Amino acid sequence: MTIHDRMERLTQKLAAQCRHIDRKSIEAFIKAIINSKKIFIHGAGRSGLAGRAFAMRLMHLGFKVHYVGEVTTPPIHKNDLYLAISGSGRTSSVVILAKTAKSKGAKLVLLTSHPDSPLGALADLKVVIKGRELTKGRSSDYLARQITGTHDVTAPLGTLFELGAMVFFDSVIEELMIRKNKTENELRTLHTNLE
Amino acid sequence: MTIHDRMERLTQKLAAQCRHIDRKSIEAFIKAIINSKKIFIHGAGRSGLAGRAFAMRLMHLGFKVHYVGEVTTPPIHKNDLYLAISGSGRTSSVVILAKTAKSKGAKLVLLTSHPDSPLGALADLKVVIKGRELTKGRSSDYLARQITGTHDVTAPLGTLFELGAMVFFDSVIEELMIRKNKTENELRTLHTNLE
Amino acid sequence: MTIHDRMERLTQKLAAQCRHIDRKSIEAFIKAIINSKKIFIHGAGRSGLAGRAFAMRLMHLGFKVHYVGEVTTPPIHKNDLYLAISGSGRTSSVVILAKTAKSKGAKLVLLTSHPDSPLGALADLKVVIKGRELTKGRSSDYLARQITGTHDVTAPLGTLFELGAMVFFDSVIEELMIRKNKTENELRTLHTNLE
Amino acid sequence: MTIHDRMERLTQKLAAQCRHIDRKSIEAFIKAIINSKKIFIHGAGRSGLAGRAFAMRLMHLGFKVHYVGEVTTPPIHKNDLYLAISGSGRTSSVVILAKTAKSKGAKLVLLTSHPDSPLGALADLKVVIKGRELTKGRSSDYLARQITGTHDVTAPLGTLFELGAMVFFDSVIEELMIRKNKTENELRTLHTNLE
Repeated sequence: MTIHDRMERLTQKLAAQCRHIDRKSIEAFIKAIINSKKIFIHGAGRSGLAGRAFAMRLMHLGFKVHYVGEVTTPPIHKNDLYLAISGSGRTSSVVILAKTAKSKGAKLVLLTSHPDSPLGALADLKVVIKGRELTKGRSSDYLARQITGTHDVTAPLGTLFELGAMVFFDSVIEELMIRKNKTENELRTLHTNLE
Repeated sequence: MTIHDRMERLTQKLAAQCRHIDRKSIEAFIKAIINSKKIFIHGAGRSGLAGRAFAMRLMHLGFKVHYVGEVTTPPIHKNDLYLAISGSGRTSSVVILAKTAKSKGAKLVLLTSHPDSPLGALADLKVVIKGRELTKGRSSDYLARQITGTHDVTAPLGTLFELGAMVFFDSVIEELMIRKNKTENELRTLHTNLE
Repeated sequence: MTIHDRMERLTQKLAAQCRHIDRKSIEAFIKAIINSKKIFIHGAGRSGLAGRAFAMRLMHLGFKVHYVGEVTTPPIHKNDLYLAISGSGRTSSVVILAKTAKSKGAKLVLLTSHPDSPLGALADLKVVIKGRELTKGRSSDYLARQITGTHDVTAPLGTLFELGAMVFFDSVIEELMIRKNKTENELRTLHTNLE
Repeated sequence: MTIHDRMERLTQKLAAQCRHIDRKSIEAFIKAIINSKKIFIHGAGRSGLAGRAFAMRLMHLGFKVHYVGEVTTPPIHKNDLYLAISGSGRTSSVVILAKTAKSKGAKLVLLTSHPDSPLGALADLKVVIKGRELTKGRSSDYLARQITGTHDVTAPLGTLFELGAMVFFDSVIEELMIRKNKTENELRTLHTNLE
């Protein structure tokens, strides 16, 4: 299998994964973003990187958005949105801050592969991206089975969830451009010039 | 167009984009990684996030890898690899540190959409991901035209390059797992347990 | 009061604060660092910045050190040292990861103003820097009272603890240079050249 | 020499260092902060950590402040302030972004030990903290000589500059509290509750 084959397969997996996201939860997600006063985003590891990429584009769209842990992030309050990103739904540092956010009155939105999880139990809104699922006690690859009919150990660990999160977020950004009537040039105007 | 349509189109664009990556440059990229003593990765903005995601997986594979700017990143030397990620090939902070890396004797590898650029001129090896291209003085969408035949303003700014970089990197990770004969469980063993 | 007066007073406060650090705990702290296999450091907000500054110098001294949350940080194991920095001793994200570190068999060292705290209860070794103390239910300034005899609202929030932590850490670095017989030039050799 | 002696000496050095900061430059620094529309801060390594600590407190005081490189940092414009922190005045990544900031019309303020440097030549305002000075081609310790009369190799590399920067910044914060009539409780109200 060449790298080109791998890239092709990976994009197919991402496409298949995205088809499974519940339509109503997507619409609720977009509305929650538009109606929030401020948006706070948090995740650990590569999920956190997907969250940072989303935060940057939301800023380009004019939203008041903060990534949790950055030095200029203010406190969270009622009417703010807290987006937690965790494939397993049980990453301890993500759970603990999500609890705090909820205790301050924020709306808790969760992006996860596992809605039946500690974070799932806390969340006001869940968007589920399949990613890996645990089958019979060991990690398996849901989408590989869907596509190839075989067990396939590629796309290791949280790869599918993390890339799927990025594709989902960037599609939401396109939709928000349309709903807020923003052109690419308007986004560019808010893109940092300090790089 | 629904969000599901957008996600489908975005994954198609990513697939088309990946098909254009030169096969020989991919093989040289993989060899450069395997043969380096240490790997340093740098990019600005969302390109930097893609670089961080790649760095984490390389660490899981047992490579000595550092993201430039983190507090425990050591100096770079001869026989080390420096991976610069810049869609435009001209991000000033990326150019300046790539120059330093090269002056210290490191091999400079560039991931870019624009090989005819200041970074392209410096690089020992270039991997080109199309992303956006500038046509007739204004930003256009290369891949959208390939697929839909129309000019399409979606996937704003560097989105296609950044997501394409992530798909490329994660496919390289799969290949490195095979060449280094690493199972997913071995990667898990090196995944941080502090999350 | 001029800024020069303020800087003078702040350095006096730092000096007074440092005099109160228990001698035996300092020696145990230095031994713990020298005898650890790997060192992991974590703190939130400005305490985390002090921790990052310390991590960088430990790397310059040749220690295997990682700041928790950076993308190339590996898992923690037995015989590793986990340094948690928290003035209050109860910062939730710091507590939760310290628990994890301890459950993996690492030695938990705590830098705090409040040894009678959740983190204090977990720690194998505590180094106490006075900083602010809560007197009669409201925050007061321990050291200001020591020096000026009056209640003084300057050095707001955790400032004294955070600056005190930095002075303490940098004094430990000097001591480690001597015990490990390292010259400044040897440190410079390990200082990143990518800035 | 005990660690207590080292901490005592280090705080004395910091105090001596702070006494040398020019009074007029301090006043101009405070005015520049108060009169700016937005504040952008940048530094490399431990100087960058000092900058982040300052950024956080300025946010607590209600200023619009951004640390360069964080994902939600917007573009810089005319009437904004750009604070570059570099002991040597020649850190390449700091120089290149300071140039960009100036080209966009921002006021460039520099904290440095070396006003006769590339950054010094660019800056609209310089605040000089002695730190180390290069004497006769090799690094020496200005303040150690002032205090002890001997050459002293402790406080390695940029330690004095970095700690001095933090003491200076935190003294400026105290002064800004008074000028903006802010109590500690008001700062606490803007302190993040997500830790």
